[in-house]
Amino acid sequence: MKGAVVLLSGGLDSSVLLHWMRRELGSEADVRALSFDYGQRHAVELDRARVQAVRAGVREHRIVPARFFAELVSGASVLTDRQASVPDGRTLPDAERDQPPTYVPNRNMVLLALAAAYAEAVGVPMVCYGAHRSDAYGYWDCTSDFVRAMNAVLAQNRRQPVRVLAPFVTMTKAEIIRTGVALGVDFSATWSCYRGTPPACGSCSTCLERQRAFQEAGMRDPLA
Amino acid sequence: MKGAVVLLSGGLDSSVLLHWMRRELGSEADVRALSFDYGQRHAVELDRARVQAVRAGVREHRIVPARFFAELVSGASVLTDRQASVPDGRTLPDAERDQPPTYVPNRNMVLLALAAAYAEAVGVPMVCYGAHRSDAYGYWDCTSDFVRAMNAVLAQNRRQPVRVLAPFVTMTKAEIIRTGVALGVDFSATWSCYRGTPPACGSCSTCLERQRAFQEAGMRDPLA
Repeated sequence: MKGAVVLLSGGLDSSVLLHWMRRELGSEADVRALSFDYGQRHAVELDRARVQAVRAGVREHRIVPARFFAELVSGASVLTDRQASVPDGRTLPDAERDQPPTYVPNRNMVLLALAAAYAEAVGVPMVCYGAHRSDAYGYWDCTSDFVRAMNAVLAQNRRQPVRVLAPFVTMTKAEIIRTGVALGVDFSATWSCYRGTPPACGSCSTCLERQRAFQEAGMRDPLA
Repeated sequence: MKGAVVLLSGGLDSSVLLHWMRRELGSEADVRALSFDYGQRHAVELDRARVQAVRAGVREHRIVPARFFAELVSGASVLTDRQASVPDGRTLPDAERDQPPTYVPNRNMVLLALAAAYAEAVGVPMVCYGAHRSDAYGYWDCTSDFVRAMNAVLAQNRRQPVRVLAPFVTMTKAEIIRTGVALGVDFSATWSCYRGTPPACGSCSTCLERQRAFQEAGMRDPLA
């Protein structure tokens, strides 16, 4: 069966990815979105995920209640530790460039493993996530090597190997924005800011990255 | 730091594994046990897990509330679908030998990924699980190849790569029982039966496998 489970955070990248997969696979395909309430700092992104899933016309959008995850890794990331504060700015000290404080231990393997379990159970052959080139500097679990290695595990499934696809892994955020524009994605219904209290703070690392990407794409960010 | 997170189901294999790791690593090591309430058919095994964790003197035993998992893969395994019945006997039709009805979609990758996240967050370098030779026939996620491929993913972590260890992966269940005897493991405080209502049914595939393994080890199963 043609279809895909798309990991949808409600951010810019995964929202564009969902619409992109919808178009790539055609209207007959079984496209589903999977989001996680894993105890991240705020729920704004999950509300945006709901909106994008409806607009993309997915067959099913599940929000998995997995708050235990933040507790399991608590203290190891500013995204799951509500006591920690999100640092300003994009310019990380060199010592943190390989793994910024916003890295969450092994989160992407956990999310992809769960998505692959769901895909296998419903008979869909692919899991997609929005890793992109601008994340590879600091997140080992957003790289082509990571995707390849994950696929080497999943390919061992004897009945129904699910494949991980990261179509944006070699694209910059600006290129993703241009792709989204061509697909008519409503960027005002996405959320990136790590701080999670509208309006977007404009000063955390992901806000700065988003602003720069919109500039590079020659666009105005509707959330800025 | 010396230490390990041991996936502990409360079954025979993981219980022996926990005591084995405890002895291997010595009393100073940070040994932790992780169990999952993932919506499996019964909670008897979790009670047994609690007992074994206490007896092994682990630093921490967590039971992760992850019942959403059974819902996510519902219908795809008799272990997570309470409407389905557990089949009798060990002799599977040829068509089911590569993947028995008790296989749960991608469960082991999910559990290992979560355990690796926890290990990384608390600074422990290893995750151990009780996959063994007698499971490799039907479960792709209980093989040496699977373990190797998982390690190829986790090795990419730039700061703190966690290693998956499956010390019993080439051992039979009878050999695990002998190992457990040498370690003084109390097999009456383990649980294997898929049906989950004491006493053990004696006729499901895992009961038959357990009986045979005890016979092979020249022992009597205290649960039989």
